[in-house]
Amino acid sequence: MMVSGNGLPLFGVILAGGSGTRFWPLSRSQYPKQVLRLLGSESLLQATIERLLPRIPITRLAVVSNAVQADVINLDLFRKGWTDIRVWLEPQGRNTAAAVGLAAVLLPRETDTEIMAVFPADHYIGNQADLFKALDQGAELAQAGYLVTFGITPSRPDTGYGYIKAGEAVDGAGQGFHCAAFIEKPELNRAQAFLQEGGHYWNSGIFLFRREVILDALARYLPDLYHELNLLGEGNQSVEEAYQKISGISLDHGVMEKAGNVVVVPADLEWSDVGTWEAFYNLLDQDSRGNAVVGRAEDMDSRNCLIFAQNRLVATIGLEDVIVVDTADASLVCHRDRVQDVKILVERLTRLNLVESVQHPTVERPWGHYRVLAHGPFYKVKEIVVAPGKRLSLQLHQYRAEHWVVVEGTPMIHIGRENMAVPVNESLFVPLNTPHRLENPGQEPVKIIEVQTGAYLEEDDIVRLDDDFWRLSEGATQGRSGHPPCSLP
Amino acid sequence: MMVSGNGLPLFGVILAGGSGTRFWPLSRSQYPKQVLRLLGSESLLQATIERLLPRIPITRLAVVSNAVQADVINLDLFRKGWTDIRVWLEPQGRNTAAAVGLAAVLLPRETDTEIMAVFPADHYIGNQADLFKALDQGAELAQAGYLVTFGITPSRPDTGYGYIKAGEAVDGAGQGFHCAAFIEKPELNRAQAFLQEGGHYWNSGIFLFRREVILDALARYLPDLYHELNLLGEGNQSVEEAYQKISGISLDHGVMEKAGNVVVVPADLEWSDVGTWEAFYNLLDQDSRGNAVVGRAEDMDSRNCLIFAQNRLVATIGLEDVIVVDTADASLVCHRDRVQDVKILVERLTRLNLVESVQHPTVERPWGHYRVLAHGPFYKVKEIVVAPGKRLSLQLHQYRAEHWVVVEGTPMIHIGRENMAVPVNESLFVPLNTPHRLENPGQEPVKIIEVQTGAYLEEDDIVRLDDDFWRLSEGATQGRSGHPPCSLP
Repeated sequence: MMVSGNGLPLFGVILAGGSGTRFWPLSRSQYPKQVLRLLGSESLLQATIERLLPRIPITRLAVVSNAVQADVINLDLFRKGWTDIRVWLEPQGRNTAAAVGLAAVLLPRETDTEIMAVFPADHYIGNQADLFKALDQGAELAQAGYLVTFGITPSRPDTGYGYIKAGEAVDGAGQGFHCAAFIEKPELNRAQAFLQEGGHYWNSGIFLFRREVILDALARYLPDLYHELNLLGEGNQSVEEAYQKISGISLDHGVMEKAGNVVVVPADLEWSDVGTWEAFYNLLDQDSRGNAVVGRAEDMDSRNCLIFAQNRLVATIGLEDVIVVDTADASLVCHRDRVQDVKILVERLTRLNLVESVQHPTVERPWGHYRVLAHGPFYKVKEIVVAPGKRLSLQLHQYRAEHWVVVEGTPMIHIGRENMAVPVNESLFVPLNTPHRLENPGQEPVKIIEVQTGAYLEEDDIVRLDDDFWRLSEGATQGRSGHPPCSLP
Repeated sequence: MMVSGNGLPLFGVILAGGSGTRFWPLSRSQYPKQVLRLLGSESLLQATIERLLPRIPITRLAVVSNAVQADVINLDLFRKGWTDIRVWLEPQGRNTAAAVGLAAVLLPRETDTEIMAVFPADHYIGNQADLFKALDQGAELAQAGYLVTFGITPSRPDTGYGYIKAGEAVDGAGQGFHCAAFIEKPELNRAQAFLQEGGHYWNSGIFLFRREVILDALARYLPDLYHELNLLGEGNQSVEEAYQKISGISLDHGVMEKAGNVVVVPADLEWSDVGTWEAFYNLLDQDSRGNAVVGRAEDMDSRNCLIFAQNRLVATIGLEDVIVVDTADASLVCHRDRVQDVKILVERLTRLNLVESVQHPTVERPWGHYRVLAHGPFYKVKEIVVAPGKRLSLQLHQYRAEHWVVVEGTPMIHIGRENMAVPVNESLFVPLNTPHRLENPGQEPVKIIEVQTGAYLEEDDIVRLDDDFWRLSEGATQGRSGHPPCSLP
């Protein structure tokens, strides 16, 4: 795919602040849907960016996410080497109107000749060429001053999507239609009527508009939100101050359903919002009995089931329309008709303060990953894998000592004043308050087993003295170096 | 419960050789159903023995099992301090006719005045007093020369059990009936007719007979089997030789259905063969929606389900008649109508050579237990827990070194010529070929994290130099000291 040469220049804003509770137990509040590698080897966020790069240069892309997800979002971008993408962090999620408004305010001034193109970070689009064609059409309309939304030509009477009803064709351009109505997720018979009738499109969440056009619309339809963002844009309050006063509303509800200059560009895309386990099931290959199986599973006679076995053996017998998702520390077994309720379940787990709603036992890091193998009140056992050529920060711990046994590879280990290559089957002790660093200078992964001992064993007992990544600054609300969050344009 | 003083003396034979594949993934071929603690804190085998002890002295009990299960059976008895119970090991399972015949041959000669009472090791019986009453009645009939079987008064038209149809009352005794027919698991309408009609009993698998009466019956109805066991009994061949020539058949099919002197003693017991996950579900308390939940589970709106969460969080939504069993390394999700097929599933897993059909990650030992936390081609990480007052064997390994970190308790550790108390947060290295021993002299459990390194990491790389248990003898076909397997009476 070549960079499209004909279209108007675009500035891409990727909304990546979703919590993705509907994909529990694969997603967690600290590991949201957009960084899941659900479809192939790339995360949904990575695939979204990869898809756009032939059309929008990397220096004209920004990712809007929120503070608690800063690490995983940064890591996801870092893994692809995308250090030039802006990351704008909201102090907390306030729905899409605020995120789009924040992006409009933070957009670099030199991009005023460009169209803002807003994309969800966590959708699937199969046919890139058709997307680009629709983007070019939409950009023309956005340039002309319209608020442009993308409507996907429906392939089935899906009751999980919102619909847009197209009205009169826009004069001249001929590729877009005035929006006659926004329709929330309809009942099945209504969705069937839409499909038969034609002229109804799935609401994709993709928007195009000029910066001043969306700011004008926000000023008119969401004046309170506009006021706070404007103060922020003028440097008269911080993003934290602004967000404390902003209430959450979607761009659809807040602006698109009210404004008169909204048009829909129909796009015949292979598209899914990957919104539930059911939507994911529909994207997978299914066998002759309608089962979609991922991972290590043995089935007898089940029909129309999704079996997702992340690392353990899952055996199923005689199920129908059931979704089984098995992860290292939690399992979900859910009837397919009830996938919308996974969100409610996770809210319940969160109220119960269960760690399984927050994080996975395996935690990804810019240098590799670690997995908690066991823990007790005064000890924790981790398997630590350092990727070739990477190293952890130079760090020390105030409350825990660490025992390391090298089981794969040959790390360079720095402890106190010593620096040594440590072969397999050697062990080392890292006392309290001692600077240390684990480095993999080799070509293969290094694996060590770490036994931590101490009365306090949380991850925040870490003082970083030097780091190859973006992690010397304090707190999660900082962006990556070079791109502090919400700096003015 | 006092020892019943009125009944004839009994010698109890407990058949504990079942593989229990129907309780996968909780049971494994190396961890069969009879040692599962399904109902309360005792294993089914322990509960079976405990139930009999007021009626049959421990020195008049024998457990028949098979060689591959020797360790877990011995351990299960050892845990209760039952070192006086005979354990007779078959080289491999050959069904109940062989097991009962072997017991008859091995029965101590001085017990010829006693009635052999045969019990499955893995059934549930709620009301001990009624069991003892029925045993006393049955013993009278056995004394009179009958082959006595126990029939449970059915409480529902269960299609999972075999039935015995009672014929004429036995003259004089008045408490038993000649058997008119043995009926395999019937269809539902037939089972309903049995219940309505009366005079039909569930076949409990409990038998009473005099030793020479069952041997005569075996000689008549299973002459080949009798011939081999007789050679064994006369010291003219080993149990291995005999079992190579014996073919497997149940006592019911081989003898009881054919012999004329078979009587059934009806017993109104709270009884279950605990034969499937469905039978287990029926023994559990169920909530108002019919769900039986064991462990850490969160449900939304499921009905009539069994949720068994051994150690991880299991969430269920909108299921009906589904059984979910979640263990450390494998999960089963099975429709309740299909519990009989778990056996077939496990056969498939075994053909596929999957370790999950053989053993659990947590392995019980007489001194405590260990759990494999992680493993790779050249390393294995274990959490080892030593019970207070216990110690492992004095041992060495030829192919692996071990790193130990003490994380709980204060073990005494013997390595080479040293013997030392090692506090928490200390680590030690155990080189190849070095005698070592881990001991817990304290009042609390000792826990260590062990990282093994080497090219061969299987459990059989162990040379035991001294052991507190029965494990110095080689190979699994040896019984415990004092009771070599299948020694002549």
